[in-house]
Amino acid sequence: MVKKVLKFGGTSVGTTERIQHVAKIIEKEQSLGNKIIAVVSAMAGKTNDLVKLSKEISEEFNKRELDVLLSSGEQVTCGLLSGALIKLNVQAKSWLNWQIPILTDGEHTNARILNIHIEKINKYLDHGGVAIIPGFQGISKFGDITTIGRGGSDATAVAIAKIFNASTCEIYTDVDGVYSTDPNKIPVAKKIDKISYDEMLELSSLGAKVMQSSAVQTAMMYDIPLEVRSTFTDRKGTKIFSQENIDYTKSVTGVAYSKDDAKITLIGVEDKPGVAANIFEPLSKAQINVDMVIQNISSDQKTTDITFTVKRGDVSKTKQILKKNSNINYKKIIENDKVAKVSIVGAGMVSTPGVTYRMFRALSDEGINILAISTSEIKLSVIIEEDNTLKAIKKLHTIFDLD
Amino acid sequence: MVKKVLKFGGTSVGTTERIQHVAKIIEKEQSLGNKIIAVVSAMAGKTNDLVKLSKEISEEFNKRELDVLLSSGEQVTCGLLSGALIKLNVQAKSWLNWQIPILTDGEHTNARILNIHIEKINKYLDHGGVAIIPGFQGISKFGDITTIGRGGSDATAVAIAKIFNASTCEIYTDVDGVYSTDPNKIPVAKKIDKISYDEMLELSSLGAKVMQSSAVQTAMMYDIPLEVRSTFTDRKGTKIFSQENIDYTKSVTGVAYSKDDAKITLIGVEDKPGVAANIFEPLSKAQINVDMVIQNISSDQKTTDITFTVKRGDVSKTKQILKKNSNINYKKIIENDKVAKVSIVGAGMVSTPGVTYRMFRALSDEGINILAISTSEIKLSVIIEEDNTLKAIKKLHTIFDLD
Repeated sequence: MVKKVLKFGGTSVGTTERIQHVAKIIEKEQSLGNKIIAVVSAMAGKTNDLVKLSKEISEEFNKRELDVLLSSGEQVTCGLLSGALIKLNVQAKSWLNWQIPILTDGEHTNARILNIHIEKINKYLDHGGVAIIPGFQGISKFGDITTIGRGGSDATAVAIAKIFNASTCEIYTDVDGVYSTDPNKIPVAKKIDKISYDEMLELSSLGAKVMQSSAVQTAMMYDIPLEVRSTFTDRKGTKIFSQENIDYTKSVTGVAYSKDDAKITLIGVEDKPGVAANIFEPLSKAQINVDMVIQNISSDQKTTDITFTVKRGDVSKTKQILKKNSNINYKKIIENDKVAKVSIVGAGMVSTPGVTYRMFRALSDEGINILAISTSEIKLSVIIEEDNTLKAIKKLHTIFDLD
Repeated sequence: MVKKVLKFGGTSVGTTERIQHVAKIIEKEQSLGNKIIAVVSAMAGKTNDLVKLSKEISEEFNKRELDVLLSSGEQVTCGLLSGALIKLNVQAKSWLNWQIPILTDGEHTNARILNIHIEKINKYLDHGGVAIIPGFQGISKFGDITTIGRGGSDATAVAIAKIFNASTCEIYTDVDGVYSTDPNKIPVAKKIDKISYDEMLELSSLGAKVMQSSAVQTAMMYDIPLEVRSTFTDRKGTKIFSQENIDYTKSVTGVAYSKDDAKITLIGVEDKPGVAANIFEPLSKAQINVDMVIQNISSDQKTTDITFTVKRGDVSKTKQILKKNSNINYKKIIENDKVAKVSIVGAGMVSTPGVTYRMFRALSDEGINILAISTSEIKLSVIIEEDNTLKAIKKLHTIFDLD
């Protein structure tokens, strides 16, 4: 008998009709001889509704009480799904965070799971029951409800898979897997059958909103096989596991993009030690996330130009901080928020020579100017003019054999 | 320092604006030096919404899971009200049923409260905190959530007042008290300042939907002073306590009516021992509640006519059962569902001679025919034609000095 954790996101349980459909998925998985723990999100939109109510009272609503409020959403789904299973004559039971219990570090609205008691649920599974567990929540050692941050239902599922020693953790959602690029933009995008944790993390951070990054990190840390699949089709999804288990026939796994970046260049910065720290320390203190940084020698050899990217929403705050900062001298600030970040991701890149060169050549062939470059072990990102995004993705998707 | 239980019903907490208003009421009560425990209902309409969801899945939704589902409603109100109080700089905290805990007999959807742990909350009150508690729920000895039936928030409030030894239990609702009759129908209806538990029970059972009867019964049993008052005005409400504490200057406290009854007459029933039992036993087994029963001698001395009233919704079921019942012989069934029950209620009736006579005379003066009569210690009810209801109430309200 195989123990499986199945996690169902907000859209998968968005209506009672969908909840009944989820009940049928669980019924089928159990009839195949699996022991099932299901982790559920709040019905789509419900958490936002509850947040809205709290904001009507206070923008800085007390965090302990916000957790009491928000945790009710998953409780509703738990009750409905258990009831739907029982109606199908499947033995099922909801287990709320305090009934298990799921113990957290007590940090309200952003808790981390420390431990989960497994005895009672394991016994229940042994007797043929399906356990339904609310995602996104636990209790502190003082018995207060603590939620574990937005998207925390994925984290709950992975933590449960780890602690219950499940053989797999399946994330049911409204897309049927991870794609080689955005299928809404590039129709030849292909679903990826297998992907490594690292690649998934890079793709997630680049805008592929399939799974919560922190949950993927946890899965990677404990080597828990994941599968992202659609609640609404029978098709296989994308399996996510450690790199060693994947045969890479292709150097590049996927092409991602994001249009949330802006590029800022400081022209004529004094070229002396410590200048970069002087620029970026106050930005970091202001919670501004600096992504790429490029430093060039300037024409006059005594000054340099520094280019970096931040989120578009942070541009005006960034400029304010730079202007107020008396520790740095520069001649001019140039900004450009009409840029896009396009990345190729692939664990096979390390062992394939020439990937970098091929990317640059391909973009150049299309007449696309590269404004900034950043690389990692399994990722290569460039900043280009926003208008060129689609052309760049199409070209890269083709030349790296992803069509 | 006086300990008070304040209970806020669904319409009182129906929006975040109203919840903030409730927070101000609590703030004021606390600033007067009172220790406050607030018991809250789900926001108006929410429980019905949740029931509707469950019915979309199954008309006979599993009761354990229904309780998990429904209890989320009061949890939401608890979080929002505590947050609203904290925003007013009032020290406040929500205490969910399992955090207290409130222990019940475990009967899902219809539990009875057995015990409430008071130590932690008493300590919290001693330190100046306001405790916010969800009505309508508790946990079984196995740690399952159990709700205590619709309207159970009143019952929770009274049980908490009893167990915490509170000096009073105030029921905040959308009406400003108990009236001498329906103020929507009879504009001269007056708010009653003081009323006994018994009178309140009679008025409740006769259609004055101000408070849950079982909660009044519990308050009566343990002699807990109640006050029903409006959340939306500053006016005093109606105090409810034991009869000994009330000086009755009037024989009649109020006039009530209900239009939910139907009258059934069996003509020519064989007049022998056991016949009434033969008629009413099968009705009782079918959960049909028979209210008044009148038996007259028939003209031929060998048979009798039996008249009784049931709820209108039960008429056709009642007739079916009577017709199938071979144990009783009768000549004819007559039914009339265009009748109303009008009652006068007053603890002062016992000690005032002639109340019965005055009621019958008054109705006769108005040309109203009495179809059936039933009496108790503190109540006198008659069945009349429905069209005469308003005329009857007006007349009785006047002649018993209630205008």
